[in-house]
Amino acid sequence: MADQSTEEGLAFAPQFGADGLITAVVTDAKSGDVLMVAHMNKDALAKTIESGEAWYYSRSRKQLWKKGESSGHVQRVIELRVDCDQDALWLKVEQHGAGACHTGRRSCFYRAVPLRKSGVAKLEFRDAGKRFDADKAYGKKA
Amino acid sequence: MADQSTEEGLAFAPQFGADGLITAVVTDAKSGDVLMVAHMNKDALAKTIESGEAWYYSRSRKQLWKKGESSGHVQRVIELRVDCDQDALWLKVEQHGAGACHTGRRSCFYRAVPLRKSGVAKLEFRDAGKRFDADKAYGKKA
Repeated sequence: MADQSTEEGLAFAPQFGADGLITAVVTDAKSGDVLMVAHMNKDALAKTIESGEAWYYSRSRKQLWKKGESSGHVQRVIELRVDCDQDALWLKVEQHGAGACHTGRRSCFYRAVPLRKSGVAKLEFRDAGKRFDADKAYGKKA
Repeated sequence: MADQSTEEGLAFAPQFGADGLITAVVTDAKSGDVLMVAHMNKDALAKTIESGEAWYYSRSRKQLWKKGESSGHVQRVIELRVDCDQDALWLKVEQHGAGACHTGRRSCFYRAVPLRKSGVAKLEFRDAGKRFDADKAYGKKA
């Protein structure tokens, strides 16, 4: 449990994990859909606050990363919120370009898990249409 | 980067971290607001899928936890989605009772971080009204 000042105070004291990262949930400011879940280190958070555009830290590439730097699909941050114990962030964004997901889709969450069933779950596609050619957007050679 | 089958296939293969947990983003199915960010272990995920009500794993209490078991503020899961690399979940829920946050608020995200400013950030309350008496709901003695 976080202490009283972390929860009720107005001092921004983001709680980065042992890996130096904090979880960032990104929603579309218009539709409310969750577009992606990403991570920020201190630098990414500072750049996001200063610029009003979303920066993250890529765990796979181990580097600071401006969303849209390859694809042009930048995210303008409409509002940034922090949760009660200050270990998670919520970005409401205006998503530029066709989508947020590196697979070419609007959102990274394009598959549903059926509920109230036992046994092995088989996913179902939802809003899974590709909005852009990911290979082209990210400059991958065929 | 996840492999092709993880991203494009229909096999549900949730990627739990080294700590055995996966991040779960919880939104209000009606408003689209992010209510909370929590974590699930395998048991919590299995119970959520089977029952259609949200179960989590509490990192602070180190135990499986049915949302609302103390407060009555259970979450009926309307839809469960998984992201591209299957290391994050999105639950759209019908939040019963007054709120999701242990501080007595509807959402855990009741403070905003001002943008496009440099220097030390001072948070601003947003939708921060308390909906229920947290001490009563969680049985805390004064």
